[in-house]
Amino acid sequence: MRSRITLKEVSARAGVSYQTVSKLLNHQVHLSQETEERIWQAVEELGYKPNLIARSLRSRRSHLIGYSWAPTHPDQVNPILDHFLQAMVQEAENTGYHLMAFPFRPGAEWTDAYRDLIDTNRVDGFVVSSVEYNDPRILFLLEQNFPFVAFGRSNPDMDFPFVDVDGAAGMRMVVNHLVEQGHQKIAILTWPSSSRVGQNRMEGIRSAMVAANLSTPAEWIAQGDGDYQFGSQAAQSWLDRPAEKRPTAIIAFNDSMAVGAMHAIQSRGLCVGEDIAVTGFDDTPMAPYLSPSLTSVRQPTWQIGERVMSMLLSILDGTPLENTHQLVDPQLIVRDSSRRVHRQTR
Amino acid sequence: MRSRITLKEVSARAGVSYQTVSKLLNHQVHLSQETEERIWQAVEELGYKPNLIARSLRSRRSHLIGYSWAPTHPDQVNPILDHFLQAMVQEAENTGYHLMAFPFRPGAEWTDAYRDLIDTNRVDGFVVSSVEYNDPRILFLLEQNFPFVAFGRSNPDMDFPFVDVDGAAGMRMVVNHLVEQGHQKIAILTWPSSSRVGQNRMEGIRSAMVAANLSTPAEWIAQGDGDYQFGSQAAQSWLDRPAEKRPTAIIAFNDSMAVGAMHAIQSRGLCVGEDIAVTGFDDTPMAPYLSPSLTSVRQPTWQIGERVMSMLLSILDGTPLENTHQLVDPQLIVRDSSRRVHRQTR
Repeated sequence: MRSRITLKEVSARAGVSYQTVSKLLNHQVHLSQETEERIWQAVEELGYKPNLIARSLRSRRSHLIGYSWAPTHPDQVNPILDHFLQAMVQEAENTGYHLMAFPFRPGAEWTDAYRDLIDTNRVDGFVVSSVEYNDPRILFLLEQNFPFVAFGRSNPDMDFPFVDVDGAAGMRMVVNHLVEQGHQKIAILTWPSSSRVGQNRMEGIRSAMVAANLSTPAEWIAQGDGDYQFGSQAAQSWLDRPAEKRPTAIIAFNDSMAVGAMHAIQSRGLCVGEDIAVTGFDDTPMAPYLSPSLTSVRQPTWQIGERVMSMLLSILDGTPLENTHQLVDPQLIVRDSSRRVHRQTR
Repeated sequence: MRSRITLKEVSARAGVSYQTVSKLLNHQVHLSQETEERIWQAVEELGYKPNLIARSLRSRRSHLIGYSWAPTHPDQVNPILDHFLQAMVQEAENTGYHLMAFPFRPGAEWTDAYRDLIDTNRVDGFVVSSVEYNDPRILFLLEQNFPFVAFGRSNPDMDFPFVDVDGAAGMRMVVNHLVEQGHQKIAILTWPSSSRVGQNRMEGIRSAMVAANLSTPAEWIAQGDGDYQFGSQAAQSWLDRPAEKRPTAIIAFNDSMAVGAMHAIQSRGLCVGEDIAVTGFDDTPMAPYLSPSLTSVRQPTWQIGERVMSMLLSILDGTPLENTHQLVDPQLIVRDSSRRVHRQTR
């Protein structure tokens, strides 16, 4: 049996990108009459049957939105999962939809779960999160022309509907706050450069540093696993240096690394905030209760959940969307860990 | 149109409890021949059609398990949600089932969501959590004779399949640990007595106190909202008393209250652990990183999720169950907040 014609074959014959074909079939774009005709001709000649058409032929939709998410480490907690899920579940229910959870299994067969759910008409659309560069799920769903919305961005040239936190903006707030506190020597606890989210936040730091006429030497950028141990060890290696080669502030890309750095600083008898500032990201519930309380960046999780689901339901409904690339601003919560002089509150 | 005959009417005519009828129809019990015959006669005379039969008559099942859960406060995080969901989702997938999330809306129409999902054949069963006394969801699902498994118990006389943490056992471990550390004056930060989970844990405390020949005066039991502020204020009121009327140890029913109590103690210049011991419950991720690190009780969340789903799938499958009332033991994690003499590790 001849395997089903793909969107790639259609786009190759029409001489356009498959994103262009996808958008045309989804009524998301108007192209020149000549281009549109060429694409429709390729569709006809190859006998391409987009899932779009298959879907409209179905007697009824499943009214289910598929979602799976990366499990957290047994010793950690996902600080945004509950509110993200609740927001999506409530938004979906308004139009008679429900969220269907399936296991998160990255690897060689990652897209198989998505294919199975599509082929069995199990779901009408997907929400995708923990998006990375060249994300196989995004590539697969674009190729299948199956409705989805991502929480997060991927490669700049991959065009798909998303809602994302403006991590760069969040980090600019952090750098500007540290510069206002008089810091010039700022170190960074980040993830490997393969991290899409990490790269976005690094861009924010770099642009704010340039604007403040500051630079960050490579030796003050530590890339690691993102856990407490890594934050602690990297901070210790900076503290082992002569005083003039030590940073006076440490920006961590999550709260776990920040807490590791705080404890490393305190283990040398130094004071977090007064001697060395530390900031985190996520504003986990423990942040206000640490000693000192931790400055962190809070993501508007509920709003993101609502917007992701609302955008997907509009796509399923055929409602034209004004903006399918939505960035939302995070919020900087300043606490004692980044204050030069803080009152000892207890 | 005559409304559908209910299980209650059947049980009234047969002169047995509706739990008994429910169990018989679910093949969960063997009764005396005389009783079984009386029930079957009532079923026939009244023309009762259990959902059980309706379900088997359906062309196909939905293969969906409905679940909704209590959202956490915006400033808090649900420490077990991720692992509980992941465990259920993975266990369900093994037999071709998926988890379907729907909004949590307690109140007058709480059971309507369940009724809608049953009537529309949307789900084949439910998982119910945050179970309380006289829980309307449990009463409704028993009455409907619709398959479900609860994470948690309700009234002792309501018989339904559940998996629960043995909170009493967890609290006995806490009390025994504190007694071993030489404590005799132990105060308690708990929830209102309407809390099913709270009552179970209190039983554990009481039995361990009695075994150690100790008592807890009413003035050392504070019942409240379970948040940081309540823990802090209750601890302060104890610290305001003359030294001989102060507790030397405080058992909190969650980590948030424990942290509030720790900070209240520290604000008086006292040392948590050496002067007054504090223990929490839940073992939230912040517990090891507090100053001092917090002793807490950890629930085997993954195991509970697997067992709940596995039990429900067995019920749906018609597989006889050996034990539909499963208690799992929590684990006491001792840290510096309850050690009389603890080394200062940083």
